[in-house]
Amino acid sequence: MNNFTFQNPTRIHFGKGQIAAIANEIPANARILITYGGGSIKKNGTLDQVLAALENHSVQMFGGIEPNPSYENLMEAVELARKEKIDFLLAVGGGSVIDGTKFIAAAIHFEGEPWTILSEGAALGKVVPAGNVLTLPATGSESNSGAVVTRRSTKDKLPFMNSLVYPKFAVLDPETTYSLPAGQSANGVVDAFVHIMEQYLTVRDNAHMQDRYAEGQLLTLISEGPKVLEQPKDYGVRSTIMWTANQALNGLIGQGVPHDWATHMIGHELTAVHGIDHAQTLAIVLPPLMDKMRAQKAPKILQYAARVWGIQEGTDEERIDQAISKTRNFFESMGVKTRLGDYGITEKEIPVLIDQLERHGMSALGEGRDITLDISREILTNAL
Amino acid sequence: MNNFTFQNPTRIHFGKGQIAAIANEIPANARILITYGGGSIKKNGTLDQVLAALENHSVQMFGGIEPNPSYENLMEAVELARKEKIDFLLAVGGGSVIDGTKFIAAAIHFEGEPWTILSEGAALGKVVPAGNVLTLPATGSESNSGAVVTRRSTKDKLPFMNSLVYPKFAVLDPETTYSLPAGQSANGVVDAFVHIMEQYLTVRDNAHMQDRYAEGQLLTLISEGPKVLEQPKDYGVRSTIMWTANQALNGLIGQGVPHDWATHMIGHELTAVHGIDHAQTLAIVLPPLMDKMRAQKAPKILQYAARVWGIQEGTDEERIDQAISKTRNFFESMGVKTRLGDYGITEKEIPVLIDQLERHGMSALGEGRDITLDISREILTNAL
Repeated sequence: MNNFTFQNPTRIHFGKGQIAAIANEIPANARILITYGGGSIKKNGTLDQVLAALENHSVQMFGGIEPNPSYENLMEAVELARKEKIDFLLAVGGGSVIDGTKFIAAAIHFEGEPWTILSEGAALGKVVPAGNVLTLPATGSESNSGAVVTRRSTKDKLPFMNSLVYPKFAVLDPETTYSLPAGQSANGVVDAFVHIMEQYLTVRDNAHMQDRYAEGQLLTLISEGPKVLEQPKDYGVRSTIMWTANQALNGLIGQGVPHDWATHMIGHELTAVHGIDHAQTLAIVLPPLMDKMRAQKAPKILQYAARVWGIQEGTDEERIDQAISKTRNFFESMGVKTRLGDYGITEKEIPVLIDQLERHGMSALGEGRDITLDISREILTNAL
Repeated sequence: MNNFTFQNPTRIHFGKGQIAAIANEIPANARILITYGGGSIKKNGTLDQVLAALENHSVQMFGGIEPNPSYENLMEAVELARKEKIDFLLAVGGGSVIDGTKFIAAAIHFEGEPWTILSEGAALGKVVPAGNVLTLPATGSESNSGAVVTRRSTKDKLPFMNSLVYPKFAVLDPETTYSLPAGQSANGVVDAFVHIMEQYLTVRDNAHMQDRYAEGQLLTLISEGPKVLEQPKDYGVRSTIMWTANQALNGLIGQGVPHDWATHMIGHELTAVHGIDHAQTLAIVLPPLMDKMRAQKAPKILQYAARVWGIQEGTDEERIDQAISKTRNFFESMGVKTRLGDYGITEKEIPVLIDQLERHGMSALGEGRDITLDISREILTNAL
C-alpha cells in the first residue's frame, strides 16, 4: 500500500425526506444561488422540497446547466453570482450540475481567466461554499473534490481536482431518482462501475481492503443494477444504487493504490467530439482497453474474474477473455451499447480523437503511463 | 436501508514516515499535552519521531494511561491540562490512550462532575482539539467519536459518543506496530473482527453495500490476521491490518443499519470485574451469543456462513453451527482463548456480572432489545 493522506469533509444526509436538512446546513443570512439542469427537478417535486426547506432564505436560480456542462454556460452563472453577491451555491441535479457548480464556486472570486483552472490547474483562492441535492446517482461528484467541464468552442473536456471544492453537504434521497429515464439510470450504473474499475484494475501489492471494497461495489452493481430498469420505484434498489455510486468515487477505494483513468480520458474525447453520453463512452472503451492491456493487468483481471464473476475454469487467457466478455455483456444488459459503430462512429473518425488526446497531453495514459497514442488508436480501432 | 447523516472529519495520514505530518497539523503556538501509556513508545522510537516533528512546539507529557483507561487516572491529566492551559492534546498509543484522551479533551472545560459525561451522556461545551499517532490497530478510536472509560472504584466501564471528540487527525504508520507483543497484535485483530460483527450480524433489508464492506473486512482479517503473528515486521501485512481495523469502526459500515453491541456490553463487565483484556471478552461472548440468538439472526448468520466462510453444505442449523465454530476457531487460531474457564471464571461469578449489567441499564441488549438479563445469563453460562 502506498502512503496517503485522506479526509472527506462532505456531510452526507441519506434517505427519504432528507432534503429538509438543507435548512440547517446553509447559513440563515446566505445569498443562495440554486443551480440546476433541464428542469426535471421542477416536474418531479424535488425543487418544491428544496424551496420549502429554504423558505426563510434568500434564493436565486440559475437553470439550464447541460450534460457535460459547458464553460460558456457556466461563466454566465459566474457573472450572475458576482453581480448578485452570491455567497452559497446549492446544486440540485446530477453530476453535471454538481461539477458545473464546483467550477462556478471556484471561478467567482478567481483573478484571471477561469479557464486556466482547467487548462493549467491554476491555484484557487477564495472558493464560494456549496452543497447539493443529488438526483442522479452516477459520478460521485456530490462528495468528492473533482469536476469536469467542457469548452464547446474548442471541444476541450477537461477535469480539475481541488480539496477546496469538496461540497459542504450532500443530500441523497433515493426518491428523487424514481422518475429518472431508464437510459439515465443505466448510464449511472455503468458510470459508477467504470469509476470502480479505474481504481481497482491496477496491479499492486497488499491493498487487500481496497480490493475487497471495490469487489463488493462491483458485485452490488451487478446484482442490483439491472433491477433499477425493472423496478424503478423500488426504494431499496434505488437506495443501494445511490449509496454505491457515491462510494465508488468518494476517495475511499482509491487511497494508497495506483489508478488507471485511461478509459475516462479516451472517453472524454468521444464526448467532446461526438457528443456521446459519458457512460456510453466508458462502456465503449473499457472492454478493448482491458483486452489491449491484458498482459500488464493479468494478475488483477484474473482476480476480478474469480471474485466478481466467479470464473474459475480455463487457462489464464481464457479467463481473461471471459472476464472481458462478462464486463461487456453487463453494460449491454443495462441497455448501454458498447461499440463505436452503435453510435455511428467509423474508422475515419479515429485520427481526430487521437489528435485531441495529443493536444490535451494524454500521450501516456494508464497507471503505468504506457498507453501511448498508438495504443489508444488500437483500443479505439478494436472498439469499432 | 435506514436514513442516516454521516460525516467523518478526521484527516488520516497513512504510511511510513507520516508522523512528520503532525508538525503542520498542530498550530505553531499550541500548548500541547502528549498523552501515552506504559512507555513502549519510548522504546520503539515512536516518541522520538513525534518529538522531532514537534521540535518547534511547546510540549508537555502525561504518561501512564493504562489499558481500559481509568477515570481516576485521566482526571489527573485533566488537572494538569487545566493548570498548564493546554489547548491541544496529542495521544500517542493505542485505543486506550486515544479513548482516555477523548475524555480528557471533553473534561478540561466541562462544568460540573466530568463522570456525568459517561454516566449520563452529559452535553459537552468547549472541547480541546486532539489528534493522535496510533500504535496499536484495534479499536478504530483514532478516527471515530466514541470512547470507553472505566471507574476503578466502582467497577463501572462506560462508553460515550460525541461528534465533538472526533480527532482532528490520525497518523497510521504501520512501522510503529512492528514491536507490538504478539498478544496485543492478536487482540487487535479480534477486536476489529467483533466490531465488524456487531454492525453486520443484524437482520436488515437492502443494505447490500454495507454487507459487502463488512464481509470484505472480515475476509481480510481472516486472511491477513494470522500473518501478523508469523511476520510481525512485514509492512504489507501490518498496513492491511492497520487500515482494516480503522475501517471496521470509523462509521462507514454502520450507516443506515441496525447494530447489536451486546457482545461489547457483556464483555465490558468481564473487564470491569475481572480485568480480562477487552478483545478476550469479545472472543468469549460472541460465539455463545450467536448460538443463543440463532433464530433471530438466522438469515444473516447463513449469509455470513456462505460469503465469509464458504459454507454451502448442510441444513440451516448445521451451517449456523459451522459458522459459529469457524468464528470461535479463528479467535483461537489467533491465540485468543474463548472460554470463561480459560480465564479462571466459574459459574459462581456470573450473578455478579448480571448485577453489573442491570446496574448499568443493560437489561435489553442487542439490535432487537431482546437480550434480557436472563438471556445474558444463559450466554455467559454457555461461555463457561
